[in-house]
Amino acid sequence: MNKIHASARFLLASILSLILSLAAIAQHPANGATPSYSPQLVAELRQLQQAAMASDYAYNQVAHLCNNIGPRLSGSPQAAQAVDYVAGELRKLGLEVQLERVMVPHWVRGVETGELVEFKGQAPKATQKIVLTALGGSVATPAEGVTAEVVVVNNFDELHALGRAGVTGKIVLYNARFDKQMAEQGFAFDAYVQAVVYRGSGASEAAKLGAVASLNRSVGSADYRLPHTGSLRYADDAARIPGGAVTAEDADLMAALAAQGTLRMHLTLTPQTLPDVESYNVIADVKGSEHPEQIIIVSGHLDSWDLGTGAIDDASGVAVAMQTANLIRQLKLKPKRTIRVIAWMNEENGLAGGRAYAQDFAAQITNHLAAIESDSGPGHPTGISGHASNKAIEMLRPLAQILQSQGAGVLRQSQTAQGADVSPLDAAGVSTWALLQDVRKYFDYHHTAADTLDKVNPRELAENAAMIAALAYTIANLPEPLPR
Amino acid sequence: MNKIHASARFLLASILSLILSLAAIAQHPANGATPSYSPQLVAELRQLQQAAMASDYAYNQVAHLCNNIGPRLSGSPQAAQAVDYVAGELRKLGLEVQLERVMVPHWVRGVETGELVEFKGQAPKATQKIVLTALGGSVATPAEGVTAEVVVVNNFDELHALGRAGVTGKIVLYNARFDKQMAEQGFAFDAYVQAVVYRGSGASEAAKLGAVASLNRSVGSADYRLPHTGSLRYADDAARIPGGAVTAEDADLMAALAAQGTLRMHLTLTPQTLPDVESYNVIADVKGSEHPEQIIIVSGHLDSWDLGTGAIDDASGVAVAMQTANLIRQLKLKPKRTIRVIAWMNEENGLAGGRAYAQDFAAQITNHLAAIESDSGPGHPTGISGHASNKAIEMLRPLAQILQSQGAGVLRQSQTAQGADVSPLDAAGVSTWALLQDVRKYFDYHHTAADTLDKVNPRELAENAAMIAALAYTIANLPEPLPR
Repeated sequence: MNKIHASARFLLASILSLILSLAAIAQHPANGATPSYSPQLVAELRQLQQAAMASDYAYNQVAHLCNNIGPRLSGSPQAAQAVDYVAGELRKLGLEVQLERVMVPHWVRGVETGELVEFKGQAPKATQKIVLTALGGSVATPAEGVTAEVVVVNNFDELHALGRAGVTGKIVLYNARFDKQMAEQGFAFDAYVQAVVYRGSGASEAAKLGAVASLNRSVGSADYRLPHTGSLRYADDAARIPGGAVTAEDADLMAALAAQGTLRMHLTLTPQTLPDVESYNVIADVKGSEHPEQIIIVSGHLDSWDLGTGAIDDASGVAVAMQTANLIRQLKLKPKRTIRVIAWMNEENGLAGGRAYAQDFAAQITNHLAAIESDSGPGHPTGISGHASNKAIEMLRPLAQILQSQGAGVLRQSQTAQGADVSPLDAAGVSTWALLQDVRKYFDYHHTAADTLDKVNPRELAENAAMIAALAYTIANLPEPLPR
Repeated sequence: MNKIHASARFLLASILSLILSLAAIAQHPANGATPSYSPQLVAELRQLQQAAMASDYAYNQVAHLCNNIGPRLSGSPQAAQAVDYVAGELRKLGLEVQLERVMVPHWVRGVETGELVEFKGQAPKATQKIVLTALGGSVATPAEGVTAEVVVVNNFDELHALGRAGVTGKIVLYNARFDKQMAEQGFAFDAYVQAVVYRGSGASEAAKLGAVASLNRSVGSADYRLPHTGSLRYADDAARIPGGAVTAEDADLMAALAAQGTLRMHLTLTPQTLPDVESYNVIADVKGSEHPEQIIIVSGHLDSWDLGTGAIDDASGVAVAMQTANLIRQLKLKPKRTIRVIAWMNEENGLAGGRAYAQDFAAQITNHLAAIESDSGPGHPTGISGHASNKAIEMLRPLAQILQSQGAGVLRQSQTAQGADVSPLDAAGVSTWALLQDVRKYFDYHHTAADTLDKVNPRELAENAAMIAALAYTIANLPEPLPR
């Protein structure tokens, strides 16, 4: 998940949660307005929950995407393999599959090394290695690297206080910390949004003052000398300088030494931006029996960062969406409306898939009742969050009561889009939905080499699949369409 | 710490602990034989404890060794810098410093890369990168690497069952797991000893059956795609093949794929073994006022693995030993016997320092009353462990009661040497001592790039310093010399 947008919504959601919870209590059972579901729907939802918990289908999909295919950055051969694989699996379920063409960026990582080469005016007898990684979209240093003084700042105010005289010709290190205690208390996305701005905008801000390269302290919660990649965004009015992320440990080291005296480093980053590549959103429909034109999307994104194998970000999301279709087929259920599985392309560095879909399907947009996305990892779910009308939220309250049986009965109204890929649909008035989950460890692994299969707990993945399947099936089978 | 020997002793210690605890209870206060300390000694021990907890001296030493000097593998320029630095700091305290010459190996890491290049007979469209590191002492592959089939075994029995036909020309992966649950329950060294045998002996065992290279699943408890290095030992009767450690995640990946079909990888390891280098144990004496010829050693090792900066292994041990001398000077205490600070060289890949000392000081060995080593990280201490006679243990029981004030009153008799560097002294009859500590996280970082300053909790380091200073000072000031 590229959390720049997502985080803003979570921040708002957090602030509003107490108010909304109180409002929900006030609205809920006393007024007797809560609609109840048909006995058949309730029975089918129970079947979906039980079948999801008994199935290893979703886990096997994650395993194949991570182990047999591997990292799936947009434009890579593995991303293309993943498109073929997921389309094939969905066809096996008897779904109508379409590949929606999307042009995506093709950025490839190169050499990425750093060493401290001078300290207090003396070349050290031996260098200290700096563990770092290039940010997605970064331009390269010269092949032989750059050598420059390092200036360490904790925020943009400190950068601007240095001015051109203090920054020109130097490498800027943004040492903004990811707040681990905040993350451990459940506010991981809030911690993320505080720190990620330096990854996103740091290079251009530094370039405006003449810096030759920009580094940020990795935006993540682990302390295992792991660099966290992610996209940077170049401003139109700044020179494009290379951007990388150092580990938390290396940021500490550089900050400690720079505080003692002049510190210089040698930095080599040689990524390349190749021509855009044709790729695809994978779209597969479980056709509705009564209102096939009305669509409920269940989705995750197929592309992943290249350092790890994208297990939690976001093979899990794709697998859970695929499992929704698989369970409906396995149980021979008949949704009244169409449940559309989408494996999005290019969430991480462009959002080309999500944007293309909203354009290509603009004519049918009013028939999209809901767009569900799973892109916050497969942690234990505790409920449902929707950017939807009050009425839509209330229509799902009986579902929340059913989901309470698996400890996931929270129902929360959010104020922002519930996923990056579905945000263009959200902007077009489609209600968007996601699960509330345990994300305390999510940013330990997010965008790192350690985002691998072992980070997926099979039982928790199944819990997610049970929730998403029940959510989609409920919206597909309510007597009335979910209001926009 | 190179825990191959150390672990065996902890295994024994664990097995025996219950028996000994019961024995200790039986011996302890009821029989009234416990000696009590003079009011002056008790007061001085309290002073040492309080001063240690109020001091940042030890932490500053760790910070300098890790940040300003860096990784200190034997033979490296940084190891030489560290010798100079520590000798200089100890001279600043007014100690008599001697540098004991030791010839040490000089092994330097080179390129280390791995990729999966063929699976089920098909070259994949894109490779999966394998994160790995060379084991200390490993020979190199050809510069262009080797490409071979991977065979995965969980133990030596499985290797031997494959026989020459199953192993010749292949890369063996030992997938023995470090038992995290065991480690979390306090038996980290037992978990280590179970798994480390494949790192130590795996290459030679595989070579005997014709393997071209050997890899082991990293011996450690973290799951952040971190490879753990450490020494391998080549048997005299086997070809020397390259040996490396893959991360736990990469071991899982390779095992999963190899279980599905033939898996081939390309492995490049280009370390070099250069000629031996002259290096030094740093030895500094706080001379005894009454029995200067009687020696109590407080020590840690100055060399460290090259991936991290050796904060917990073992700048912390050196710093705590230095702090013992610093506190005695600061408080103007007068130990009756000589307290000898030693920063050992070459614990990690040869033990040349420990061996040389036992030889060079063989004539004075009976005057060595105790050798204390800190080499299990700076985790919160809970007590003292000694490989010593029953009488020696009983002579320290009042100290244990005093240390109970900082929650560290356990006193345990061990059956094996209490540190690798002091093991040659132990073999010569010197009692050896270490602290009992919280080591639950130690093997998360042990021998990895993440062994860095931030892993040292300043308060816990101070607790260790307080314990070690009190232990050394007690032995230096008891009315009778500690029996051998």
